[in-house]
Amino acid sequence: MPPTISGAPLPDPITEPPGKDELAARLARVQSRMRAEGLDAYVSFDPVNVYYLTNFANNVHERPFLLVIPPQGTPTIVAPLLETSHVRARARCDLEYATYYEFPAPEGENWWDVYAQVVDAGARVGIEPAMPSGIRERTPGTTVISDIIDDVRIVKSAYEIGRNVHACRVVELGHEKLLENARPGTVVGALYAASSQAMMARILGDIPHANLVVTRTVGAVWPPSISHDPHLIPTFGTQIEDGGPHVTIAFCQVDGYGVELERTFFLGHVPDDARAPFDAMLEARSRAYELARPGADMGEVDRAVRKVIFDRGYGEQILHRTGHGFGITGHEAPYLADGYSRDLEPGMLISIEPGIYIPGQGGFRYSDTVLITDDGCLSLTHAPQTLEELTLPL
Amino acid sequence: MPPTISGAPLPDPITEPPGKDELAARLARVQSRMRAEGLDAYVSFDPVNVYYLTNFANNVHERPFLLVIPPQGTPTIVAPLLETSHVRARARCDLEYATYYEFPAPEGENWWDVYAQVVDAGARVGIEPAMPSGIRERTPGTTVISDIIDDVRIVKSAYEIGRNVHACRVVELGHEKLLENARPGTVVGALYAASSQAMMARILGDIPHANLVVTRTVGAVWPPSISHDPHLIPTFGTQIEDGGPHVTIAFCQVDGYGVELERTFFLGHVPDDARAPFDAMLEARSRAYELARPGADMGEVDRAVRKVIFDRGYGEQILHRTGHGFGITGHEAPYLADGYSRDLEPGMLISIEPGIYIPGQGGFRYSDTVLITDDGCLSLTHAPQTLEELTLPL
Repeated sequence: MPPTISGAPLPDPITEPPGKDELAARLARVQSRMRAEGLDAYVSFDPVNVYYLTNFANNVHERPFLLVIPPQGTPTIVAPLLETSHVRARARCDLEYATYYEFPAPEGENWWDVYAQVVDAGARVGIEPAMPSGIRERTPGTTVISDIIDDVRIVKSAYEIGRNVHACRVVELGHEKLLENARPGTVVGALYAASSQAMMARILGDIPHANLVVTRTVGAVWPPSISHDPHLIPTFGTQIEDGGPHVTIAFCQVDGYGVELERTFFLGHVPDDARAPFDAMLEARSRAYELARPGADMGEVDRAVRKVIFDRGYGEQILHRTGHGFGITGHEAPYLADGYSRDLEPGMLISIEPGIYIPGQGGFRYSDTVLITDDGCLSLTHAPQTLEELTLPL
Repeated sequence: MPPTISGAPLPDPITEPPGKDELAARLARVQSRMRAEGLDAYVSFDPVNVYYLTNFANNVHERPFLLVIPPQGTPTIVAPLLETSHVRARARCDLEYATYYEFPAPEGENWWDVYAQVVDAGARVGIEPAMPSGIRERTPGTTVISDIIDDVRIVKSAYEIGRNVHACRVVELGHEKLLENARPGTVVGALYAASSQAMMARILGDIPHANLVVTRTVGAVWPPSISHDPHLIPTFGTQIEDGGPHVTIAFCQVDGYGVELERTFFLGHVPDDARAPFDAMLEARSRAYELARPGADMGEVDRAVRKVIFDRGYGEQILHRTGHGFGITGHEAPYLADGYSRDLEPGMLISIEPGIYIPGQGGFRYSDTVLITDDGCLSLTHAPQTLEELTLPL
């Protein structure tokens, strides 16, 4: 029975910032890939990737931060003067600094002038798909799009898994607050406050120096009037209703590590027409847990899971893939998605969240943060799972 | 005496969402520029620009939203199936929809397949500097970087100014809470909560259906131990101290319109060595208010303002330009910055915030949200200004 297919024990939670060794190992994987691709440099602009390699998280604005990585040795960060001590305060790896004064700046003193001193004009330079076109145009040498860092991030280290396990303890608390406080007429904003503040209090208790740039807590409920529409953002005053299906979302990014937990629940009673789609969703979810193991093709898993829903007659009510990855964000590669051809591997962290969405009736979806283990998968999040448990008393 | 140089009255606050006419006028300005630049299409990926033209705000993830604008007529939005009703719920302009199922997707069904049907392979296509390189590579036709929308956003309509005036009422409230609750030993997290929650409550009172994707409130204080380092993010437990200089930051984005308000304050007493840099900062600020008027070159204003600080002997203690623009964000073009050559115009909204930062002593900076009027400038934010007012009792 989901969510534990693997016999593996739950890894211990970790709350410490990454050590130099952890960051050096991440960099080594990136540099090894760079050498294999014949790159003289790789430039990371994406703040998520810069965080992954340095533990420094920036707020993106018009003053760029550019992490210039050589095929071996120490990376250089091109950063604004204003932020240099901020970088030094958070980065936990060796770094060289190339500082520019401001943007805009007088001729010869702009970020691209400093950048041009750090990257050789004849270099073959790897860049992220996310690099803004305006920065690519200022990048010296010949640029080649290659998502090396995104790719290296897909399989987690034991350290990363420990951070995500801890984040799962936090998100479980936030999810409990949603179920505890849901009553007909309650506004979503009140549930958001109860849930997100409980998570934040727990985070700050566990990690007093949490980096608030990469710490975020969200707890919300989509009542049946909108739960068929999973990416419509509820307003503060959206009201919880009698019955259901209500769909919860609890998300947190804890000092840089993101996870989620979601359930479908009912208040007081289960409408008759909700039982069949609810069961179909649960069956699809079970199928996903059975299939999620090392060696399984992720596109095939998605097709097999969606086939369950098709076979139950809800093929037109699918809006999205079966799952996505987690790590330092709550939404990243890899994907349990038709068209994504890659095998699952131990150390991947994914959501399992097949959903059914019926306008006029509502949405049916659970989501958990799931670790691929050596012999199957293991949900790192825990919350009620049965229709009985999720039919809450009024 | 700052902050009101202009004789203009304060415009009335506006809390209503933009009407079709307002959005049509924005689009018309963009399309007029497109025709002047000979573009067959302009593609906006930047969620800020999509919001400006449509009133729809997306959360960026790996499923792109692409607003394809023709030189005249109705734009088309390329959006994931999952989000189409979300777009329809918030967009307040005419739009065509081109929907793709998911990312990743099977061959022939990806976002770039739909994108290729919307943009002609022979077209000359304008793109933003912010467009990710990976999306540019999938853009049909010949792409040309041109920041038309960012540029059109620089001069505000009467409607936009009204929205920002309202946001300034909110940020003033948040700033009051910072000064009201600051005591030696108080943690920054408590001030953040008092300030940001007061702002959020006011926003939701004034705009119950505020779009939470573009609504954000931040209130914090940098105590003297870190106020010399304006972009270092305080942790939750950073403590307020006796004396000063403390530097406040109150920021809010109210249903899509961003402003800020900042002051330097002292608790109980003013250290003797703080008076000279405080006065120098105030003098530089006064100079900026005198110079900020239509026709003034923005780079020259910055140079003249920084000259005041240089002449007072603090030239080495400057970390940043004099100011930046506001609008639908809290940080955008234009810039009061050396190297930025553009004249101020009526309808621009800028910060005036020259700062002095002395390691071991602290930072000295005020910031206000300032409108350029027909004959000068007008601060839309109001807070105590004198050293006496900002020396708070213990």
